[in-house]
Amino acid sequence: MGSRVYLDWNATAPLRGEARAAMIAAMDVVGNPSSVHAEGRAARALVERARAQVAAAVGCKPAEVVFTSGATEAAAVLGRLPVARVEVDPTAHDCLWSQRRDGEGSRAIGWGYANNETGVIAEPSAREDGAPLMLDIVQAVGKVPFSFAWSGAEMAVVSAHKFGGPKGIGALILRDGVEVTPALTGGGQEMGRRAGTENIIGIAGMGAAAEAAARDLADGVWDEVAELRNILESALSSVANNTISVGNDMPRLPNTLCLIAPGWKGETQVMAMDLAGYAISAGSACSSGKVRPSRVLLAMGHDEAQAAQAIRVSLGPGVTKEEVLRFADVWSAQYRKALSRAA
Amino acid sequence: MGSRVYLDWNATAPLRGEARAAMIAAMDVVGNPSSVHAEGRAARALVERARAQVAAAVGCKPAEVVFTSGATEAAAVLGRLPVARVEVDPTAHDCLWSQRRDGEGSRAIGWGYANNETGVIAEPSAREDGAPLMLDIVQAVGKVPFSFAWSGAEMAVVSAHKFGGPKGIGALILRDGVEVTPALTGGGQEMGRRAGTENIIGIAGMGAAAEAAARDLADGVWDEVAELRNILESALSSVANNTISVGNDMPRLPNTLCLIAPGWKGETQVMAMDLAGYAISAGSACSSGKVRPSRVLLAMGHDEAQAAQAIRVSLGPGVTKEEVLRFADVWSAQYRKALSRAA
Repeated sequence: MGSRVYLDWNATAPLRGEARAAMIAAMDVVGNPSSVHAEGRAARALVERARAQVAAAVGCKPAEVVFTSGATEAAAVLGRLPVARVEVDPTAHDCLWSQRRDGEGSRAIGWGYANNETGVIAEPSAREDGAPLMLDIVQAVGKVPFSFAWSGAEMAVVSAHKFGGPKGIGALILRDGVEVTPALTGGGQEMGRRAGTENIIGIAGMGAAAEAAARDLADGVWDEVAELRNILESALSSVANNTISVGNDMPRLPNTLCLIAPGWKGETQVMAMDLAGYAISAGSACSSGKVRPSRVLLAMGHDEAQAAQAIRVSLGPGVTKEEVLRFADVWSAQYRKALSRAA
Repeated sequence: MGSRVYLDWNATAPLRGEARAAMIAAMDVVGNPSSVHAEGRAARALVERARAQVAAAVGCKPAEVVFTSGATEAAAVLGRLPVARVEVDPTAHDCLWSQRRDGEGSRAIGWGYANNETGVIAEPSAREDGAPLMLDIVQAVGKVPFSFAWSGAEMAVVSAHKFGGPKGIGALILRDGVEVTPALTGGGQEMGRRAGTENIIGIAGMGAAAEAAARDLADGVWDEVAELRNILESALSSVANNTISVGNDMPRLPNTLCLIAPGWKGETQVMAMDLAGYAISAGSACSSGKVRPSRVLLAMGHDEAQAAQAIRVSLGPGVTKEEVLRFADVWSAQYRKALSRAA
């Protein structure tokens, strides 16, 4: 697939070179981090180094990082809090959304900080009752400045593969002193907050990716990505006078374009562009097999027909201006064809 | 640590070359398996190939393999079955043990098929009530012939890093038609049986390791390991006349020696041998920080003093006869010293 162009970074980002190197190095670390001998201690040191790297990237203390198999596992503690109800904002990711629960009395809150489908960044509402808050910062980490320490949240969920780490590793960020019921029990790993032998190769990759992502962000790499996204947005929006660029009047991730193209189904767009050599998405890739309108777009006030005509194009630092312009040309030509067929 | 000898294969086995190669190849697979475009389909194909490899190694259908972050996550479904009580045999691993629950009425059973501390292999008791059974086959896979299809169990848990795959990836083996409540919810991955973006690098490594492990087993590699274990057992048992080789009169894994050395604490043995260049274990490595007598050894009728004097030496196909003999010499000399100090 050498000539293909990957524009689906919000589904998953390519593995960073730094992560790759760290993972290959970790393959030679034989021990189990729970073992007390030299091999075990070497594995433990690797985990703790990655913990510090992740903490630096999300602005928390190393002890507040609990490694999990991803954001989905991290989000599971929200549903296990000893509260009567769990409120989740309707634009939050399915892994938080699936934790909601009705009931009278005490509550906990799940909040999508940066939406994967639209890129919209939304600060959580004020909490005068002190309800514990979990933020989904999966799409934010590495793309926009974020500090858990300053966020006021009790919990946050992170996924390595969205910022160039491997898939299947993530973290629950858990404020000092906040107690949760672990989703996985058995061994005493992660200070009793998550049982199971650590995914040390994945953890090493996550740590290296977090460090590289924080450096790229500080270096302004995503400002260039935002420029390309804006060029793309103008080009795609100009084909018809009733396209909708979702969320472009709100704070947004620098890389995400969610476009509603009236008269052209999102799924058809994805297939047409795939055949032309471009990887894009129609809504979240996390819910494979679900062909129903995006809950996020409906919650934002769009109707079912509009939601069914939405695509997500998400860029990353590896994407070139030439690729973006070429995509815009191909997409525009296809859209005009689709409109003329429908006319 | 070039001159070190690793004899703690039950804690974790070194990564197989086949797994390493498969993982490095998987690093170039960009897509999310849930995406419908070419990059997503390539990632999906990799997952399905590994699923078939794991199924072949454990004797089940590919559709019965649900990838998880390890045995601990796989075991979590036992505690979520809609039964009044969950019975777990006391020699089972902590990840099953932690799922037990009291209650009158319907039951489910957790059973350790091959024990990690002693290597003892125990067939589950007959179930006339048809209670669903989960087998912990973590230590068995790749070391002894096992077929899930023939086992009669409804569920089994598997961990890749015990047979030369990476840490942090495993599987729930779930018999066709058996319904469970997933431990992780959100996306629709793994046919709705386990949410969360797949650890595709880990899954590729697990598949390759499973295939290689099955081949090694068929080739009789573990018969040679058993010979070395028996040589080691004779040598260590001969130092004092009251040592106990736990489980040596029962069906046992070919690689495991659990030895009680009266007068010498297990923790001290581990430290002394670590300093001398050998990695061994005093009980399970999964419960780091827990300095309490082994539940498994107590359940087998040993007293607390005996349990505190036990070590586990677990070999693998990479270990040589020369290394085993050298270990026996060093350990025997140290034990004699410990006994003379105590005298």
